[in-house]
Amino acid sequence: MRREKDLLGERNVPEDVYYGIHTLRAQENFPLTGSPVHPKLIWSIALIKKAAAAVNMELGDLDEAIGKAIIEAADEILNGQWLEQFVVDALQGGAGTSTNMNMNEVLANRAIELLGGSKGDYSLVHPLNHVNLHQSTNDVYPTALRIAAIELLKPLSDACAFLQTELQNKEEQFAGVIKVGRTEMQDAVPIMLGQEFSAYAQAIARDRWRLYKVEERLRQANLGGTAVGTGLNAGKKYIFMINERVRQYTKIGLARAENMIDITQNADVFVEVSGLLKALAVNLGKIAHDLRLMSSGPRAGLGEIALPERQAGSSIMPGKVNPIIPEAVNQAAFQVMASDMAIAMAAQSGQLELNAFMPLIAHHLLGSIELLTNSVNILSEFCIKEIAAREDRCAQLLENSMAAITALVPYIGYDKATEIAKIAAQTGKAVRKIVMETTTLTAAELDRILDPYTMTRPNAGGK
Amino acid sequence: MRREKDLLGERNVPEDVYYGIHTLRAQENFPLTGSPVHPKLIWSIALIKKAAAAVNMELGDLDEAIGKAIIEAADEILNGQWLEQFVVDALQGGAGTSTNMNMNEVLANRAIELLGGSKGDYSLVHPLNHVNLHQSTNDVYPTALRIAAIELLKPLSDACAFLQTELQNKEEQFAGVIKVGRTEMQDAVPIMLGQEFSAYAQAIARDRWRLYKVEERLRQANLGGTAVGTGLNAGKKYIFMINERVRQYTKIGLARAENMIDITQNADVFVEVSGLLKALAVNLGKIAHDLRLMSSGPRAGLGEIALPERQAGSSIMPGKVNPIIPEAVNQAAFQVMASDMAIAMAAQSGQLELNAFMPLIAHHLLGSIELLTNSVNILSEFCIKEIAAREDRCAQLLENSMAAITALVPYIGYDKATEIAKIAAQTGKAVRKIVMETTTLTAAELDRILDPYTMTRPNAGGK
Amino acid sequence: MRREKDLLGERNVPEDVYYGIHTLRAQENFPLTGSPVHPKLIWSIALIKKAAAAVNMELGDLDEAIGKAIIEAADEILNGQWLEQFVVDALQGGAGTSTNMNMNEVLANRAIELLGGSKGDYSLVHPLNHVNLHQSTNDVYPTALRIAAIELLKPLSDACAFLQTELQNKEEQFAGVIKVGRTEMQDAVPIMLGQEFSAYAQAIARDRWRLYKVEERLRQANLGGTAVGTGLNAGKKYIFMINERVRQYTKIGLARAENMIDITQNADVFVEVSGLLKALAVNLGKIAHDLRLMSSGPRAGLGEIALPERQAGSSIMPGKVNPIIPEAVNQAAFQVMASDMAIAMAAQSGQLELNAFMPLIAHHLLGSIELLTNSVNILSEFCIKEIAAREDRCAQLLENSMAAITALVPYIGYDKATEIAKIAAQTGKAVRKIVMETTTLTAAELDRILDPYTMTRPNAGGK
Amino acid sequence: MRREKDLLGERNVPEDVYYGIHTLRAQENFPLTGSPVHPKLIWSIALIKKAAAAVNMELGDLDEAIGKAIIEAADEILNGQWLEQFVVDALQGGAGTSTNMNMNEVLANRAIELLGGSKGDYSLVHPLNHVNLHQSTNDVYPTALRIAAIELLKPLSDACAFLQTELQNKEEQFAGVIKVGRTEMQDAVPIMLGQEFSAYAQAIARDRWRLYKVEERLRQANLGGTAVGTGLNAGKKYIFMINERVRQYTKIGLARAENMIDITQNADVFVEVSGLLKALAVNLGKIAHDLRLMSSGPRAGLGEIALPERQAGSSIMPGKVNPIIPEAVNQAAFQVMASDMAIAMAAQSGQLELNAFMPLIAHHLLGSIELLTNSVNILSEFCIKEIAAREDRCAQLLENSMAAITALVPYIGYDKATEIAKIAAQTGKAVRKIVMETTTLTAAELDRILDPYTMTRPNAGGK
Repeated sequence: MRREKDLLGERNVPEDVYYGIHTLRAQENFPLTGSPVHPKLIWSIALIKKAAAAVNMELGDLDEAIGKAIIEAADEILNGQWLEQFVVDALQGGAGTSTNMNMNEVLANRAIELLGGSKGDYSLVHPLNHVNLHQSTNDVYPTALRIAAIELLKPLSDACAFLQTELQNKEEQFAGVIKVGRTEMQDAVPIMLGQEFSAYAQAIARDRWRLYKVEERLRQANLGGTAVGTGLNAGKKYIFMINERVRQYTKIGLARAENMIDITQNADVFVEVSGLLKALAVNLGKIAHDLRLMSSGPRAGLGEIALPERQAGSSIMPGKVNPIIPEAVNQAAFQVMASDMAIAMAAQSGQLELNAFMPLIAHHLLGSIELLTNSVNILSEFCIKEIAAREDRCAQLLENSMAAITALVPYIGYDKATEIAKIAAQTGKAVRKIVMETTTLTAAELDRILDPYTMTRPNAGGK
Repeated sequence: MRREKDLLGERNVPEDVYYGIHTLRAQENFPLTGSPVHPKLIWSIALIKKAAAAVNMELGDLDEAIGKAIIEAADEILNGQWLEQFVVDALQGGAGTSTNMNMNEVLANRAIELLGGSKGDYSLVHPLNHVNLHQSTNDVYPTALRIAAIELLKPLSDACAFLQTELQNKEEQFAGVIKVGRTEMQDAVPIMLGQEFSAYAQAIARDRWRLYKVEERLRQANLGGTAVGTGLNAGKKYIFMINERVRQYTKIGLARAENMIDITQNADVFVEVSGLLKALAVNLGKIAHDLRLMSSGPRAGLGEIALPERQAGSSIMPGKVNPIIPEAVNQAAFQVMASDMAIAMAAQSGQLELNAFMPLIAHHLLGSIELLTNSVNILSEFCIKEIAAREDRCAQLLENSMAAITALVPYIGYDKATEIAKIAAQTGKAVRKIVMETTTLTAAELDRILDPYTMTRPNAGGK
Repeated sequence: MRREKDLLGERNVPEDVYYGIHTLRAQENFPLTGSPVHPKLIWSIALIKKAAAAVNMELGDLDEAIGKAIIEAADEILNGQWLEQFVVDALQGGAGTSTNMNMNEVLANRAIELLGGSKGDYSLVHPLNHVNLHQSTNDVYPTALRIAAIELLKPLSDACAFLQTELQNKEEQFAGVIKVGRTEMQDAVPIMLGQEFSAYAQAIARDRWRLYKVEERLRQANLGGTAVGTGLNAGKKYIFMINERVRQYTKIGLARAENMIDITQNADVFVEVSGLLKALAVNLGKIAHDLRLMSSGPRAGLGEIALPERQAGSSIMPGKVNPIIPEAVNQAAFQVMASDMAIAMAAQSGQLELNAFMPLIAHHLLGSIELLTNSVNILSEFCIKEIAAREDRCAQLLENSMAAITALVPYIGYDKATEIAKIAAQTGKAVRKIVMETTTLTAAELDRILDPYTMTRPNAGGK
Repeated sequence: MRREKDLLGERNVPEDVYYGIHTLRAQENFPLTGSPVHPKLIWSIALIKKAAAAVNMELGDLDEAIGKAIIEAADEILNGQWLEQFVVDALQGGAGTSTNMNMNEVLANRAIELLGGSKGDYSLVHPLNHVNLHQSTNDVYPTALRIAAIELLKPLSDACAFLQTELQNKEEQFAGVIKVGRTEMQDAVPIMLGQEFSAYAQAIARDRWRLYKVEERLRQANLGGTAVGTGLNAGKKYIFMINERVRQYTKIGLARAENMIDITQNADVFVEVSGLLKALAVNLGKIAHDLRLMSSGPRAGLGEIALPERQAGSSIMPGKVNPIIPEAVNQAAFQVMASDMAIAMAAQSGQLELNAFMPLIAHHLLGSIELLTNSVNILSEFCIKEIAAREDRCAQLLENSMAAITALVPYIGYDKATEIAKIAAQTGKAVRKIVMETTTLTAAELDRILDPYTMTRPNAGGK
């Protein structure tokens, strides 16, 4: 045990841990969810600390030896070490201060060690005077969140590109599979199965564009704004250089916000980003639901496609296989929609110079991005990729349906077509037969008009 | 009474109404909210019908006399007439078919009248064969919703520009009013009241940019896609011309979607738009809450600003005036957030070729835009515009606070500063006095360091 | 025009209106949604005003003539008159003060008229000194909301009872219709169509019990608590008598809350009630979705039931009929779920002695109850009541399915049954045939085991 | 490595793990959130498996040796062993089947070991034929969720009782501390600080009653209903005995639902329970927000109470202490509100005989209960318990306010009181002085009328 001191008094801290008294208290204060702070957020904070140390050394505000030790310690964290030292719950009061303090203490103690000192001897490296120099939680934390989000968006974009490709593969593969279209779950006009997958692909293409935009929106940061965005205690040179350095380390086009007071207190950008992620969730949910509908059966459902079998589906019904991947995706979509609500509630509850609920926003935003990435990946890899069309079934359902009637309207009018539909429904007779009997259209004309393939595209020349 | 007929049989329709049997049935089917379909959506559908009639005439698919009568009838609706004929509830089953049918019937009957016929004589002008020619609810309705949303976004953009200006006026007016900053509702470092309003103005500027983007996202439409987006029954020429004509009538840069099947079935764009509106709602909610906090009192609260008095606040407490405009804005923000959830749930519940829940999406999307416009306007006009600073109160609270301590950290370190804060808190002594007694900083140095105005901006040269 | 005066100055009020300067200002302040305050809330406030006048007369605090005039005016409103005089928007700042003021002014002016005076001559009857005597918005408004909610719950309970009955009628009617059960949209073990309707009926029965409980929770009121629940300006006798009188007029077992400070500031009861309504919405949404699934087709879907035809479904596809009633119900369910979120956000944003967002809560709570009532009614009357089973289709799908396999597990084990399922799926052979070929089970045993009717209930004696 | 086989083929399973091929596949299929299934849900499933083994032995359907081994294995899990063997993600497709399979396999392999066999030798103990005998995921999983929820509700109820006690302690302690009441954040009539805490205590008392009700609602279970609630493959005796046995093991008054088909497919009860939890969240959020308001400052805020200091609040502002416990509680409230939305969306998306989204419901429901428990505990222990009143500040703010004016209304009328309020606001003069100057009320009368303590309760005898 070592003895540490803060504003509130003294406490024993276990000898072997790198965190200190501030972290210890926070750990005790927030025994809430058991979920740790997201590792990418930890990574991003370490990166900022490293940049600050480098800049402060360059400005002569930080002793070289101390600065180098901090940088070395930060590099270790950037390489994935010491993650177990970040012990404060993801859900925490204090706008992220506890996580910032946790980082300050871990870096200080590790730097002290690197300098040959003993953990807790803050005369060598001080968590606040050295590690946190020219910083505040209120500029470091939201900037780190932006970096973490952008970092996590890359794999999500890749996953969506992969999904789009798989959907387009199916579009091509199923280009000739004709089937009944359905609006409001009722038989409508013919459509190609490939066309249906093209619609999914297009929706995901839109999401990819959104993700691209999302990154753009996250690039405005308030690093250097310190406590309330006014830049108190940070020199102009420092502000310029720290942003430059972080840009260099991350290769992200982060820019200092023109109005750092605004960025310090307003969380609307995270609401915007979450809203865009929600649009993706909605598209995934819709696709997943369609897949469950089209693969329903296998015998007493629509049965138009077969999903790859991923696991036995029932502990009581042998041979049953369920659409578990789409089901998981539907649940992920609900989760992202609920997280969007949490983010919006937290964002609109900010007061005056700060939003105290940033930890909840961070938890849900990073969680949503990661969950979407994983969901998109399993959907592509474990489902879309190996979907097979049941062409015979598609053809049989189409043939059996009254989908053709709509194509007759330009020739016989809506009211006459309605009558024919009624007769067909009541008698079970084929539409073509009734038309032949009750109109002047010839067999040749009907061959052309009622060709289902023709019905899946606009007429070249009017009728 | 006149007699009309449809798929299900015959019904009496009141002689004087312009709608017909389809509308009558829909009116009976959906006695749900009592809210009518938004007038701008009615307007937009009428515009599309007019464009379709014009194009169909040009293509020779529609008799000139009939076409002209339909156009004249549509123009009347575009001029605000016949709104009372749209009697179907805003919340309706059927993906908007009932509203489309309502329009088809009103236009047909009014056109019949203009041609000298009697309402109900559909041999003259037929709601479906003529008015609805080459159209489906499934392409008309979502396109009309896009047009209506874009039309309503213009006043919202104007309102936001106005709000931003008023906030910037206050930024300027309060540029010299120094006060205590507050993070997590606790006294923090000094800030200018003008800086606070600059943060609000910047957030609203971001929203204006969003609204601009929103319009962009709404421009892809599926007009000509008919029932499921494949364009069945619509010729290629028609599809090209109808989009061109609607662009011309609306002066909106509407574009035919590359993949109309996608746009027919996917409602993610409305989720995206609603999410962007929610970001505005979140900003408004935050500003409104701040205004309520800063104007709290007038004597036993923060009391830093005075809102204009708009009405007596209490039926029992004489002289009480409440921040009713911000309170209304906070409620509007909650409303928009809830509507966003409704839109997302509806959008992700689409099935296969169509989203049957478009009426709910339309109701909430158009409702949100309009409510935001009205809220932004009352906030600007009835509140922000005449906010006054209570400068003396601001100065007194600042003087009384310990805000200065942070500025000492670069000179005496965090731990020493913490000690001074503790002494100040326990003894009530002024910070400056304690610093003088316990450090080597001189009076002149303290004059410079503790100057609150200096604290509201970054240091020019480091410390 | 007449001239009226308040805290903020003087204003012209149109000669013919019964409301006064307070209402006028509120009308101008809140041009937000265009939706009026719910008539039942108006009714409930009028009832409280009548009760207060009666009690105040009895206590000698109100002149008999004035009191009687107020009561007569209130009775007119209770009978449905003067609704057009309530002109303040449903969404309003000020915790309901504007609506209370509106009522005070309308009653005062109408009472003045009844006494032979001219509107605006408040020396005869004063909106605050007389009509509002011993009251505050903060006790009148939440109590009126409770009364209004309870009044609206009665028709909802009746509607649910009706729905349950209709569902039970179908349970009985379809008791012998055997079909494939489906879990996760995949064919599962056999079930009776009647059993499915019994499950719906049971869920609605649970909702009826909830509605009964809801009323219980709404009965605790704070009438007499005045501004902050402490009862300032209200005598103990008055408090006792006013609650007694309201109970008598409403025949609702309203009780004075033990802690009126609590009830004045906390809105959690409305969250609770809304949550219970949401459970009903969820059940309705699930039933509506199931009906849309089971009636899908009519030829290329499940097609197990036929919904009554309510209107032609498409402006382009003749003969198409859509499940519009369930679709409307699904949208209503989404609406109620979104309203629940609005209510919760508003409720948790109350501050100190009051919740300023009561108007939003009232708007959504009363709106949800009424929308649910209307939705339940159309679902029962226009849909459930006339649903028909397509027995042949049910039988054919069942026969075609592999539902029987599960029943074999107790006899041949899960692994053997899995093998048979695989063979059946690959070869299309009937399950019974494969069992005969690959196990020792006899034809007679299989007759018993594979009887689908047997499979719809537990075994009497083990296997 | 050992070799296992299922419907889809063969796989290698690591030698040392107790789970098998079904679990392995599920683990691969759902790399989604990284969160494990809640341990209490695991516990509850193990308990049901133990009960089933016991009953099946008693019925002679399960060999004694096998049954005893299963029970011993289950007991180990009930004692907290083998938790690391439950490797499937909390968010999973398949309605819980993967978790049920995971349990079946772990119990089977452990039982095999106990019988001296080698893991994977399912001829000794079979996961499905023996461990899962007479069960389906669809009856086991929802029943286990009910048990888990009830088990977790006990500590939540205790936590709420503790919170209520602490609030009542403060009610007593602050019974004599008079202060300004505030409605809509504006100074209102006087109130006791103790009265404010009494309102909090009362709200929590209501929540305790709700939690009590919640348990009641969760007691109806479908154990024995097997796949779709019809009880296929389960004998009547078994159904009776398994429910009895689970009741005996849990000491929870679990009852077999009358209609097990209903309970198998409908998840509305979880919506109801979550809604009731949300009411608690709303109350906690409101209390937490009030505490942050009243403790704001310490110097430039309301400053009426002092929260216990739990940790240094800022990495840049020395001496700053923030209301971190209420802030954490506010975030927890948002989290529970968002989870409620997730649960409702999942519940209303059930289809036909089953709700495939039970894992999401379970994850959020159990998560909400536990988070609320932890939040209530830190709020009580780390905050409420040691709140101190700043009596001088309370008195000073009250004295300075115009709270007294309301008490004059019964004597001088609302309009006269309004005039006095205006003069007081404009001149800063004391209300009492103005009354003396402009009315006939005597000093003695004013002493009585303006006594703030009197104003905190109803008048004994009218005025």
